[in-house]
Amino acid sequence: MARGDVRADKGAMEIYDRIEKYLTGKLLPFWFTRVAAPEGGFTTYFDRNGDPTGQTDKTLIQQTRSIFMLSHATRSGYGAGKAAALLQPGLEWFWRHFRDPVHDGWFWIVDGTGKPVSTDKIMYGQSFVIYSMSECALATGDPEARRAAEHTFDLAQKYAADTAFGGYREMFLRDWQPRPGGAYGGDRKSFDVHMHLMEAYTALYELTRAEIHKRKLREVIDVLWARMFEPRSWTGIAQFGLDFTPLRALMFKTVWGADRDNEGEPRPLNNTSYGHNIEFLWLFLHALEVLGEPVDAWKEKLAALARHSATYGVDERYGGIFVEGPHDGPARDMQKEFWQQAESLVGFLDAYILLGERTYWDAFVKVFDFVWTKMINHDVGEWFALLDRDGTVRWDYLGHAWKNNYHTTRSMIQTLKRLKRIEEKGLAVRGA
Amino acid sequence: MARGDVRADKGAMEIYDRIEKYLTGKLLPFWFTRVAAPEGGFTTYFDRNGDPTGQTDKTLIQQTRSIFMLSHATRSGYGAGKAAALLQPGLEWFWRHFRDPVHDGWFWIVDGTGKPVSTDKIMYGQSFVIYSMSECALATGDPEARRAAEHTFDLAQKYAADTAFGGYREMFLRDWQPRPGGAYGGDRKSFDVHMHLMEAYTALYELTRAEIHKRKLREVIDVLWARMFEPRSWTGIAQFGLDFTPLRALMFKTVWGADRDNEGEPRPLNNTSYGHNIEFLWLFLHALEVLGEPVDAWKEKLAALARHSATYGVDERYGGIFVEGPHDGPARDMQKEFWQQAESLVGFLDAYILLGERTYWDAFVKVFDFVWTKMINHDVGEWFALLDRDGTVRWDYLGHAWKNNYHTTRSMIQTLKRLKRIEEKGLAVRGA
Repeated sequence: MARGDVRADKGAMEIYDRIEKYLTGKLLPFWFTRVAAPEGGFTTYFDRNGDPTGQTDKTLIQQTRSIFMLSHATRSGYGAGKAAALLQPGLEWFWRHFRDPVHDGWFWIVDGTGKPVSTDKIMYGQSFVIYSMSECALATGDPEARRAAEHTFDLAQKYAADTAFGGYREMFLRDWQPRPGGAYGGDRKSFDVHMHLMEAYTALYELTRAEIHKRKLREVIDVLWARMFEPRSWTGIAQFGLDFTPLRALMFKTVWGADRDNEGEPRPLNNTSYGHNIEFLWLFLHALEVLGEPVDAWKEKLAALARHSATYGVDERYGGIFVEGPHDGPARDMQKEFWQQAESLVGFLDAYILLGERTYWDAFVKVFDFVWTKMINHDVGEWFALLDRDGTVRWDYLGHAWKNNYHTTRSMIQTLKRLKRIEEKGLAVRGA
Repeated sequence: MARGDVRADKGAMEIYDRIEKYLTGKLLPFWFTRVAAPEGGFTTYFDRNGDPTGQTDKTLIQQTRSIFMLSHATRSGYGAGKAAALLQPGLEWFWRHFRDPVHDGWFWIVDGTGKPVSTDKIMYGQSFVIYSMSECALATGDPEARRAAEHTFDLAQKYAADTAFGGYREMFLRDWQPRPGGAYGGDRKSFDVHMHLMEAYTALYELTRAEIHKRKLREVIDVLWARMFEPRSWTGIAQFGLDFTPLRALMFKTVWGADRDNEGEPRPLNNTSYGHNIEFLWLFLHALEVLGEPVDAWKEKLAALARHSATYGVDERYGGIFVEGPHDGPARDMQKEFWQQAESLVGFLDAYILLGERTYWDAFVKVFDFVWTKMINHDVGEWFALLDRDGTVRWDYLGHAWKNNYHTTRSMIQTLKRLKRIEEKGLAVRGA
């Protein structure tokens, strides 16, 4: 399927076929042929043509997301053993160079030779260790990956859990004392990190079926719903003080590459991320599924969240989903970033399956059309990083330290699962 | 000094001399000659004459409090090596029989041969492992005791910390899943356990000076002040739901010997324990001292707490301190139990030193007179368990599984310290 093959609203299985061909023929091969770094570990530094940029610094996010990608593909039946074969050497490099032999936990950045560059303990990254190692153990049965997942969970309980207010602190120095406050993040909590802990604990509990992992999963879900949502729109609030007082979201003084979340001046207090909201929706539904718990009690809140994303987040004019806006009105930042597109594909399909409203199928189609015609660099295989509202490419690289393979590959795999379910359940919406 | 040598208000050093003679001549010898159980471990089963009752079941509280008593005496310069010599065999028996080799943590009760009788994990007991092992390591430098303290702290963070609401869950099955709710305690939090965690973390931080131990000490202090006090009188509330909603205090279905806290039907909601309040006061001041933090911010609250205990808790007629009563009026339960007397001696002296008001010296004297003339079985050395308001002995044993050596010996040692400080500072109140 070439770029320009627009209008996807012809039916679930037609889109399914397109995505499957793209996933197996372009996207996964893009990574399978590039992700093993010549110097060891994984690399995700590629320009718009898919050529290496020459950077070799290794970030915790980049390594764990590559481990996740290979594990998730394997577990989902893609890669025909190739993904699994790529895992082992990368895992060994990771264990050798990222584990802090003095204070335990995992470094934030090491250089190409494995020398630590940033030794801070950032929970965003630690949560991806739990997530990727759990997925790896689920995919391959690797006992070392399982041990790493369980042990990192234990470290989070010891060093990050906040026994005064609940939830977790998020940013620490190498020895696990909290970083200073304010822009150093030591006295803040975020929707983002708590959502990713939910994601990580879901995978860990799926792996171990241990009561303590289930309990902590439930607790972080409680924190998210009780403390981190604006309770009229049920949309997320980005940042909080330790006591969960909502705060204007700051840029933190932590190297976080070119993630847009990390740019510019503090956000207004009345602000929410469409991408995080709709990502939360599907990660939460998945958590309930793994917990074996019914969704009924949450349906109204999820409906409010989904309605907000579809109403204010989806671009009626160009398709795709915007970056962010207030809890109660139209979008403020109308650029199109790769990860929000990826997560909202899955989220809108889940909203459609859960709520049965055509609106969410339409929202999915509008995002998919934008992704398919503007976001994906079909000639090479991966997605661009950031586009203007109308699809003009603004950041054209296909991978770097922070923009890599987790959102795009998982989105395609999870979208396929849902399209199939929609077809099987007879929910498929035929073209208008 | 024989019983009947009444009226203690002749000055700090006069009381000091009496207590020191009693502590070194009667109380500590009582335990040094009896605490090593013939079958191994420690025993505290003694009738009113100090004769063994023949019971051999070992409780976690009894073992850890005996370890604390021997360590605290050693550290405070008493026992002349005898206490330290008694420690080692008891410690080894404890490690061999109380440690759960399957699920980690410490059993609640084992029999005389070391066979588990109750394998539940009760945080009240786990906190005394942290406390006693820290004190032991501080007294003797024992690295195994230190490891046990630090590891039990880690278990508390992993299994007991409540990351939804803050604070700790308190009652677990052997495998650390929470016990059922209600009378099984799995869904309750208590002032008592959180206060003892503060006490335990204070000793642990004093030992290790580790940031994480300091942080968790501060957090449990925050939970106590922010969630567990009635905020007009600044007196403690006994029990809560997981979200800190105050609840009528239940008797838990846990073998807890003859501790009175464990008897009868639920307490009224408007109810507070004079003994816990005044014990909290001095344990909190000690925590601040170990933390190196000033008391100023807490002075008003502590003054309210002390005033309540002195006004409603102290028996103007017979001396001594009552069991409990409402947050805002006279005592309801006017019996005299050993541990509240022991803790209020220390607490009223600290209130006197902190606030400089004669009231608290007088309160101390009234409790001391009652202890000296009624509570202590001077012929044998230890204190009776429970007296009627007027001093008539109701429960006459000197020790059992739950009434043993921690409150009485610590009270005497700590009271001496404070009397000396009062004398040195020129605060001593001479007889009226």
